[in-house]
Amino acid sequence: MIRVGIVGASGYSGMEAMRLLLRRKDIKVEAATASSSAGQRLDALAPGLAGRSDLVLEEFDAKRFEDLDLAFVALPSGEGMKVVPPLYDMGLRVIDLGGDFRLQSTQLYQQYYKLPHTAASLLGCAVYGLPELNKKTIAAARLIANPGCYATSAILGLLPALMHGIVEQKGIVITSASGTSGAGRKGSVDLSFSEVNENVKAYKVGSHQHVPEIETVLTSACKGPVTVSFVPHLLPITRGIYTTIHATLTQSIAQEDVLRLYSEYFEKAPFVRIKADIPQITSVTRTNYCDIGVYVQERTKQLIIMTVIDNLIKGAAGQAIQNMNIMLGLPEELGLES
Amino acid sequence: MIRVGIVGASGYSGMEAMRLLLRRKDIKVEAATASSSAGQRLDALAPGLAGRSDLVLEEFDAKRFEDLDLAFVALPSGEGMKVVPPLYDMGLRVIDLGGDFRLQSTQLYQQYYKLPHTAASLLGCAVYGLPELNKKTIAAARLIANPGCYATSAILGLLPALMHGIVEQKGIVITSASGTSGAGRKGSVDLSFSEVNENVKAYKVGSHQHVPEIETVLTSACKGPVTVSFVPHLLPITRGIYTTIHATLTQSIAQEDVLRLYSEYFEKAPFVRIKADIPQITSVTRTNYCDIGVYVQERTKQLIIMTVIDNLIKGAAGQAIQNMNIMLGLPEELGLES
Amino acid sequence: MIRVGIVGASGYSGMEAMRLLLRRKDIKVEAATASSSAGQRLDALAPGLAGRSDLVLEEFDAKRFEDLDLAFVALPSGEGMKVVPPLYDMGLRVIDLGGDFRLQSTQLYQQYYKLPHTAASLLGCAVYGLPELNKKTIAAARLIANPGCYATSAILGLLPALMHGIVEQKGIVITSASGTSGAGRKGSVDLSFSEVNENVKAYKVGSHQHVPEIETVLTSACKGPVTVSFVPHLLPITRGIYTTIHATLTQSIAQEDVLRLYSEYFEKAPFVRIKADIPQITSVTRTNYCDIGVYVQERTKQLIIMTVIDNLIKGAAGQAIQNMNIMLGLPEELGLES
Amino acid sequence: MIRVGIVGASGYSGMEAMRLLLRRKDIKVEAATASSSAGQRLDALAPGLAGRSDLVLEEFDAKRFEDLDLAFVALPSGEGMKVVPPLYDMGLRVIDLGGDFRLQSTQLYQQYYKLPHTAASLLGCAVYGLPELNKKTIAAARLIANPGCYATSAILGLLPALMHGIVEQKGIVITSASGTSGAGRKGSVDLSFSEVNENVKAYKVGSHQHVPEIETVLTSACKGPVTVSFVPHLLPITRGIYTTIHATLTQSIAQEDVLRLYSEYFEKAPFVRIKADIPQITSVTRTNYCDIGVYVQERTKQLIIMTVIDNLIKGAAGQAIQNMNIMLGLPEELGLES
Repeated sequence: MIRVGIVGASGYSGMEAMRLLLRRKDIKVEAATASSSAGQRLDALAPGLAGRSDLVLEEFDAKRFEDLDLAFVALPSGEGMKVVPPLYDMGLRVIDLGGDFRLQSTQLYQQYYKLPHTAASLLGCAVYGLPELNKKTIAAARLIANPGCYATSAILGLLPALMHGIVEQKGIVITSASGTSGAGRKGSVDLSFSEVNENVKAYKVGSHQHVPEIETVLTSACKGPVTVSFVPHLLPITRGIYTTIHATLTQSIAQEDVLRLYSEYFEKAPFVRIKADIPQITSVTRTNYCDIGVYVQERTKQLIIMTVIDNLIKGAAGQAIQNMNIMLGLPEELGLES
Repeated sequence: MIRVGIVGASGYSGMEAMRLLLRRKDIKVEAATASSSAGQRLDALAPGLAGRSDLVLEEFDAKRFEDLDLAFVALPSGEGMKVVPPLYDMGLRVIDLGGDFRLQSTQLYQQYYKLPHTAASLLGCAVYGLPELNKKTIAAARLIANPGCYATSAILGLLPALMHGIVEQKGIVITSASGTSGAGRKGSVDLSFSEVNENVKAYKVGSHQHVPEIETVLTSACKGPVTVSFVPHLLPITRGIYTTIHATLTQSIAQEDVLRLYSEYFEKAPFVRIKADIPQITSVTRTNYCDIGVYVQERTKQLIIMTVIDNLIKGAAGQAIQNMNIMLGLPEELGLES
Repeated sequence: MIRVGIVGASGYSGMEAMRLLLRRKDIKVEAATASSSAGQRLDALAPGLAGRSDLVLEEFDAKRFEDLDLAFVALPSGEGMKVVPPLYDMGLRVIDLGGDFRLQSTQLYQQYYKLPHTAASLLGCAVYGLPELNKKTIAAARLIANPGCYATSAILGLLPALMHGIVEQKGIVITSASGTSGAGRKGSVDLSFSEVNENVKAYKVGSHQHVPEIETVLTSACKGPVTVSFVPHLLPITRGIYTTIHATLTQSIAQEDVLRLYSEYFEKAPFVRIKADIPQITSVTRTNYCDIGVYVQERTKQLIIMTVIDNLIKGAAGQAIQNMNIMLGLPEELGLES
Repeated sequence: MIRVGIVGASGYSGMEAMRLLLRRKDIKVEAATASSSAGQRLDALAPGLAGRSDLVLEEFDAKRFEDLDLAFVALPSGEGMKVVPPLYDMGLRVIDLGGDFRLQSTQLYQQYYKLPHTAASLLGCAVYGLPELNKKTIAAARLIANPGCYATSAILGLLPALMHGIVEQKGIVITSASGTSGAGRKGSVDLSFSEVNENVKAYKVGSHQHVPEIETVLTSACKGPVTVSFVPHLLPITRGIYTTIHATLTQSIAQEDVLRLYSEYFEKAPFVRIKADIPQITSVTRTNYCDIGVYVQERTKQLIIMTVIDNLIKGAAGQAIQNMNIMLGLPEELGLES
């Protein structure tokens, strides 16, 4: 029996991790923490779990995690770096679903997260947990920086084209749209139903923290500077991200050849599906899949790439569990099948 | 030029009143107050009003209303009774969109609003502002208690049947469902898009403050005790209320006769439309109409009545303006046409 | 390995059954039929199943079902009675998700379904597949009439109160609201997003085919005539039913006693959860649960019962699989856990 | 009194034109046609108009338009070119809300609309009805090609930047997302609530008929070839378009300077509002406004432009009425104020 704990189980990502882990017979969730909801039963917060768990949320105390095998940290950025070091130091494997360990540069972190980094010494130990890119290093890692939701959708869409050099590394344009659960479980007028419904709005234009994440991961993978423009939008749906990417083709290439190239690139990736037609969000809702469609636009010499994920699964908790499986030597897909 | 002020212009009802009043050439909004948003331009809060108003929201100060003809008070229940007395004492006409002056009984008020009433001396001056019932007394009033949204939809649906004695005054069952704007403009997890979307939930079962409002208004109109059960539900739409009512028939009566009776009852009511078929919310969205459908169910000897309104218009700001028109001797429909 | 077939796999109920069955290791779906979509791959219609099934939809041919253990029939009412007889005659177990075998009276069938019944001789073999009521007869049955979605939500809510005689059998008022998937997978202006969104509308008032289903099942269970009024509404959500029931109390009884009585009644029912507070749809979405809340309203001497289900799971495909499990002597919850 | 007719009054654009015209005291709608709905009262199709119009929809017959001043043609592309010639020949002013007269090239028409053009002789008489660009020629025109909804949102966003040469004419990337009413009033599985809700999907990637419209209008305005990539997406909202544009800056320029340049360009355009912050759809819903926001992204030397419109108003019926006002020498904003 693998024994795990969840720090931040009352947010949407933490709750989704809980839901996925409760289906597992080989895993036991021993501790689940929350701040303002500490003391409440988990199934009071998530009535869908009624009858499926007796867990009571508790305030974070590192000692409670001492004997565990692995901890998921699902806290807002800035909070994760406070609890990851003590957990890591106790010898646990740690998967951080927040943004604190995704950027190796504390300067970029400060610039985009508007916070000084207080656990810089651990950055060198952190592996970027995108299994389709880093499976081997994930297997050997003790600290995983679980990728951002938008970043996952953009990087998976771009990797094959960039790695094969069929698109240029500059001038990439990414527009994404996300459901509201990506903004977390919180009460604010801007996230209220009355304001979000029947509305769409771009936000953090030019300043979203996933810009440096996308650029540094792709730059490192391609061994050359990749620059992107990224514009996220808030959508009136609960779950899901749609990402539409434009990149300039470096050569004339047929649609089928791009499809083949993408299929081959992800041949061993059980959660990426290359589509002959245009992907849609509901195909991946509540799954760990990333569906990708491509379109060669000869008229403008561009490759248009469309990807969809569920922001809480492949964009957060599902990918975290995929990383856990890899770290523990288990089949990558375990507990993520449906 | 009629000069008016709005207390609580940053909430949905206040803002909707503002929107409707800005279309009028005979009315000038001289003051608009808010608490936490004081100092902001109105069109920063309501970007849809950009280019249509230069008003800056200010903190409430009764003196600013001194020379005005009429004040709309669109504050949460409990707050209205603090500002209505000074405004009333200055000689203004006052229309209170909250619940503070709807119940003549301070005991019922305390029971359902969980607050002691602090302006009981004004209750005797307040007229219940349902024009389809009280047009004459509204015309002569200086203080209007603008009806609750659910109460409007239930009372209009029941009035003709009860007044003609075709249904019993006891055993009436009212189930209603409302869009989220009825809960006001606020940030809370329960009202967030992620929680409300794809969901329905009853609330305040057996304890909603519109129960005594519906019962006392109907009891007074019918000169006999009317009792109702009322269950409200929160819906994933922004605007609109659907109310479905069951009442026991006192006699055998044909569908067409009920339709005729309803049509006659509302003959002079420009904002009530009797439908031969089943009403739907979108027919009344952003209008001051109440659409009513009826169904005589012989099998169970019940009359089923369905009504729809826009909770922010006929259920709040539109009805308030309808009341203002009547108070000022203007055509009832002025500025409410579309 | 249990070998099953699905007739009508391209509709929402059939597709949901497929989705649930594909997770099972003990079951193999050998045949899946459709009419207009015959010849297409299943995962072209349901892109979410890409990579999980190679099935190709075929036109119905009873011979293809000859060697199978069980057939699910997920056709519109009126169509089911055409294919059930040949399947039944070949010796298969058959679970009909449509309405054709739910009413024992062909006269009621004709009245509410507006069709003559053409397979009346099989009605005597059909067992009403509500496991919480008929588990034993289901286990021995060869033909199951899977309950209607609204009927499930209403009957489960009323059974304990009626069986214990704490509410009267007459004067029961049921208002329900359903997501659009209940209307099936079809193209019609009335079901288009532009018409349904931001709207609510009652329909089939006084004439819905679940009225006789609810009444006859409850009448039979209670050994005395039960009559109900039932008003369904169409909601702008995809999945889920909210049912709010008013019944007249026959006695004074405390809320806790009703809760205890309900909990005891469903003690052995793994998919019914009695809630101390008000149920909400999202607690049961994509699960086979029915959540039930009750409120004793002393003021009007009524019991208010609120129930929620996912119309495609507990209201259709999930309940069908629950029935299959019982028929095959498997654990009732197999494959329905999450 | 101006006498007008509407061809195609049962679709969303035609109905919206009707709604807007019914508010006018200077206009009388004398004829309204429909095909399958002919013979029905207008307010049976649009229950929101109950009590506001007695019009009965009739089959199209050019003679009924003989004495009228102006006709709106709101038919699907391919149908408009059948009725416009007879109306035009009778001497009426005609505003075609479809796509048949927007492209001067019959070859491009054939390529993108997949239809041969059958009224090519009238193309020379048609003026592209974007008032912000062609006000003078509109005033003198007898046949207006009312712009496409996406095209309106893209062209208005790009015009100032292109006309001032601050962005390059090549490499422009436009991603748009539209509510479902843009697809018209029709029953199809793809537009059903169950399929659209909680979903987003790109469509017509690389082949949308607004591509040549955007390119030829901008090319003609800029006196040099403009090429764009345009990817539209379907959104789960009823009304509204969000368009996000990337264009390469030709020079270093400050955000404030771009804002000033945009404000000046649209100084005399009453329905374009330049926003200092990011626009959102709900600010323009049910209005004729186009709100525009800009962001100078120095890092990638791009100008990001975001625009929002209501696809049925500024993107269709509202713009058509704006054009009518200009053609008739009336104030441009008449009847479009709110």
